[in-house]
Amino acid sequence: MAADPLGATTLTVGVLGGTGDEGRGLARRLSLAGHPVIIGSRQAGRAAAAAAGCGGGPLLSGAVNHDAAIQADVVIVAVPWEGHRDLLTALAEPLAGKVVVDCVNPMGFDSRGAYSLRVPEGSAAEQAATVLPDSTVVGAFHHVPAGLLLDPEVERVEMDVLVLGDDRAATDLVIGLAGEIPGMRGIYAGRLRNCGQVEALTANLVSINRRYSAHAGIRVTGVWPPLR
Amino acid sequence: MAADPLGATTLTVGVLGGTGDEGRGLARRLSLAGHPVIIGSRQAGRAAAAAAGCGGGPLLSGAVNHDAAIQADVVIVAVPWEGHRDLLTALAEPLAGKVVVDCVNPMGFDSRGAYSLRVPEGSAAEQAATVLPDSTVVGAFHHVPAGLLLDPEVERVEMDVLVLGDDRAATDLVIGLAGEIPGMRGIYAGRLRNCGQVEALTANLVSINRRYSAHAGIRVTGVWPPLR
Repeated sequence: MAADPLGATTLTVGVLGGTGDEGRGLARRLSLAGHPVIIGSRQAGRAAAAAAGCGGGPLLSGAVNHDAAIQADVVIVAVPWEGHRDLLTALAEPLAGKVVVDCVNPMGFDSRGAYSLRVPEGSAAEQAATVLPDSTVVGAFHHVPAGLLLDPEVERVEMDVLVLGDDRAATDLVIGLAGEIPGMRGIYAGRLRNCGQVEALTANLVSINRRYSAHAGIRVTGVWPPLR
Repeated sequence: MAADPLGATTLTVGVLGGTGDEGRGLARRLSLAGHPVIIGSRQAGRAAAAAAGCGGGPLLSGAVNHDAAIQADVVIVAVPWEGHRDLLTALAEPLAGKVVVDCVNPMGFDSRGAYSLRVPEGSAAEQAATVLPDSTVVGAFHHVPAGLLLDPEVERVEMDVLVLGDDRAATDLVIGLAGEIPGMRGIYAGRLRNCGQVEALTANLVSINRRYSAHAGIRVTGVWPPLR
């Protein structure tokens, strides 16, 4: 594993819950950027089918979540919120010593639209850090619409990824990863204790999408990191 | 008062707590956009001095908060979070029947930087709605750096304003107001119950500013409302 983001092309990326739209979308884009990516699922067959069907190219494969966690250098968590704690608790040992990137949005829907769910630990990422004391947890990729990631006609994903965490090397690594997807830029956006509102902002983007029939994302204005 | 955002140039705007940086900045830009603006303060003299000193032009004046609330069609709340509930409770009567735009960010600072404060009502805007049952509360202007608003060399404030509320006419009105500041665009971003994370995101922008030495704001990508 390369600790330097400039060496990020050598990373093997695992995507837990990678058969969902967001997981497949990130797996697709990161494998197209040159990373070996392993989609994880509870069933190896479903993982292999997702890897074969999302247009990600030869670097993309599937495995059960446990094997994806063991083989990867960096592990993205893209499971539904309902299964978040249990899955990570079960995988604490294979995830030990690794960078774990949580992109889960605790969110509910009712007749008035989307709303954020209150999380006892403050955020999904902080819950991950609680149940994975031997991993380095980073929050990122919360706002990237799966529809854009999966669309073969979208060459550039024109938005920023807010990256949160308490370990500088780990957040730099994820900022580097995000920056390898054309159009995308990773921006450091604070410590893990400020991740709850970033996750919850997804409910606002759902409201924006509904009002404007859009695939909304965000850009941070006024900062210097250049786009590729 | 014009209910149609296209007629927003006829609105008189009050800014409660308008002697702070954010209040003076908004008062300055909205008066330059052609609105009569009244900066409110606890002391009339301080309000008048703030109005005279922020470069806002002849449409800008000062008054005590109570008079600013009475005279204005739309009232922006830009007080420190600590005084938020008490001030609004005291002004419930003059604010009745009006659109109240809350831009307050409940936030704390410690040695590790900024962090969002938990608000019993969910957000400052929902607290305002609770203590102002006869007003129409909108959340907006949370992320606009005062330094840019007050800088005479900044002609265009290049960022979006997320506008939240449960009343379509009121959110449209505020979207129109935001859009009159050159470079700025108002975007509907959900109901008031989703305002807490928008307020709290300011802590992330503080973190971004610290890391990148920036005046960070946000743009929403992928939506159609054009910039002026």
